[in-house]
Amino acid sequence: MSPAYCRIGLAGFGTVGSAVARRLVRDRIPNLALTHVFDRRASEKRRRFHAENAANPDDPEILWTDRVDDLLTSNVDVIVEAVGGLDPAAEWIRQALLAGKSVVTSNKQVVAHHGPSLRALAARQGRQLRCEAAVGGAMPIVRVVGDALAGDRIQRIVGILNGTTNIALSQVEAAGCSMARALDEARAQGYAEVDSSADVDGIDAAAKLAILCALAFNLRVDPRAIERHSSAHVTVADFDDARRRGATIRQLAFAAYDGKGGELTVWVAPVHVHRDSLFGRTTGVRNAAVITGEFGGAVQIAGVGAGGDATAVAVISDLLAVARDRAAIVPAPTLSVPRAIAGLSNVDQQRDRAARGAGSLEGFDGVVLGRDLAAEVL
Amino acid sequence: MSPAYCRIGLAGFGTVGSAVARRLVRDRIPNLALTHVFDRRASEKRRRFHAENAANPDDPEILWTDRVDDLLTSNVDVIVEAVGGLDPAAEWIRQALLAGKSVVTSNKQVVAHHGPSLRALAARQGRQLRCEAAVGGAMPIVRVVGDALAGDRIQRIVGILNGTTNIALSQVEAAGCSMARALDEARAQGYAEVDSSADVDGIDAAAKLAILCALAFNLRVDPRAIERHSSAHVTVADFDDARRRGATIRQLAFAAYDGKGGELTVWVAPVHVHRDSLFGRTTGVRNAAVITGEFGGAVQIAGVGAGGDATAVAVISDLLAVARDRAAIVPAPTLSVPRAIAGLSNVDQQRDRAARGAGSLEGFDGVVLGRDLAAEVL
Repeated sequence: MSPAYCRIGLAGFGTVGSAVARRLVRDRIPNLALTHVFDRRASEKRRRFHAENAANPDDPEILWTDRVDDLLTSNVDVIVEAVGGLDPAAEWIRQALLAGKSVVTSNKQVVAHHGPSLRALAARQGRQLRCEAAVGGAMPIVRVVGDALAGDRIQRIVGILNGTTNIALSQVEAAGCSMARALDEARAQGYAEVDSSADVDGIDAAAKLAILCALAFNLRVDPRAIERHSSAHVTVADFDDARRRGATIRQLAFAAYDGKGGELTVWVAPVHVHRDSLFGRTTGVRNAAVITGEFGGAVQIAGVGAGGDATAVAVISDLLAVARDRAAIVPAPTLSVPRAIAGLSNVDQQRDRAARGAGSLEGFDGVVLGRDLAAEVL
Repeated sequence: MSPAYCRIGLAGFGTVGSAVARRLVRDRIPNLALTHVFDRRASEKRRRFHAENAANPDDPEILWTDRVDDLLTSNVDVIVEAVGGLDPAAEWIRQALLAGKSVVTSNKQVVAHHGPSLRALAARQGRQLRCEAAVGGAMPIVRVVGDALAGDRIQRIVGILNGTTNIALSQVEAAGCSMARALDEARAQGYAEVDSSADVDGIDAAAKLAILCALAFNLRVDPRAIERHSSAHVTVADFDDARRRGATIRQLAFAAYDGKGGELTVWVAPVHVHRDSLFGRTTGVRNAAVITGEFGGAVQIAGVGAGGDATAVAVISDLLAVARDRAAIVPAPTLSVPRAIAGLSNVDQQRDRAARGAGSLEGFDGVVLGRDLAAEVL
């Protein structure tokens, strides 16, 4: 057996976990072997998974359990955490690292709130903590920001980081319906939770933005401190107004850091973006981002931002990186406290300003932003 | 001194090498120390560099030499190879690896022709060979293809990979001048060599494509075997024709691999792309690529494709990866022989077909390609 061979334990058999398991079992990816699955409803999930994958005669032996301790005390090399939510997932990751296992997680809340301390623990243990799947689905923004552009001085990150809200906003744009109706449709297609407020209100995107701020600026940002404006009340009239300005509306996550002044500007809000810009052209479940560096200029990336198969790509790329080199970790940022967190314009403010007669196109930072990006990159 | 501290030796002090040196000396990047510079005209380059960076009172001690052996037998941990050309750079990289040093290179010809054997040597030596700067400047396509999307099954890579040709083609498009005139202007701005045939004829892009085929498909492709069609003879009339079809003309590099049939399709040619597609909107020195995977769908990336500062970002990101973890290497592809290499349509063929009356929009793979991509991503 190759020294890079990795025994994998999966925690959580929902959309992402089951997609990862399917790939590992069906595709027989070199060096990766799924040996354990933990899920609270393990026996039910096991039955269904075996029925769906019965065509595979030489199925690997997988131990299924509904007790997380069976996983944490097993001989697996890596635990894939796809449980979601802060509690108890953060504690399980901590225990996994203490037990000498590397961890690959798709859990943005855990990484946003506890990433720095968990990374420090992983480094102390000589293990890896990887989280490509926590931001952007198959769009590889964690690697691009934390690794590929580590040699630049990143000044700004702007992105569409929440697929559910983008599906709903682009549906309002296309069909002229209400946000509530668009979210109902997204729910029917399996792209929105029953309670979609974490998506629409920007809580999800704020967590992802906090992760990116740690990687890009070496700043520890509490995701709860990020200014958020909900997209729940964007109306068809707002889109009509945007259209007259050559714009459309997207939920953007924005972070700009002035290292000299020590000022971080960070917000999530529905804003005008130029219709022909990367963001204006990003519809449905796709995510997109523009990362601007002092030396390399603007780097754009875009890709499918959600869904089991797309997110499983990120998880499996992380597993391959662990298998290739168990010592390699996403760089642990040096931590400091942000000196200022402030929001810029958003649709609500634009409505207010327009009502006050202050509504020139250039007056809105959100709008100017979209125009800037359009001019820069697309 | 931190165990991750890296002594860096620079081979070649041209556009890329001097930009890397400037960043290392001025920015004092943690863990990276420039200690040696080799260049055939070392004393002249040294004088100019010291004059430009005299503001730095505590300049680090750098040893300048015009003998490559001084570098290869030095105590540096990493050698940055920015000499360019196949010979003698490939042999110097081999000697550096044999001497126990890691190598970061911006040399696409060396990686395209000798990448697999040099990677095998690096792995045997427990050292790293990194080459982000060899393809795409600040656009991080080597990491995205070789690392971030390793968990997908990549089916197709299409990209604008040569900045010089893209500058010239987008200038012909904008100004209605000849390719020769556009190349003269690019030369005046320092973006084209006196002999730009390697760029315009696709030799440069073919080398980059061979590197990407190794990373994406585990295939060893001789860059000389890639079908190339020159962009030198694209005329204003060709652009007028394209415009009538809603298209424009770009030099694309294309690789598609059918793993089941074992067939690789790979070419570099000027083709029609939809004007509103990512490629149609990529002008000047920017590069762009769409990487399509079976599970994650299309991932787009774009960024500044040439120039000292942009390429230095890629080199320094590679240096930081070496410093972070000297054992981590870009995955060494398993090598096999491509079973079929074939080209698709290009502007010449389109002209022929149009002359034969076969010129419907859908009849041209290049055109359809642009339309597909436009529909998929932008």
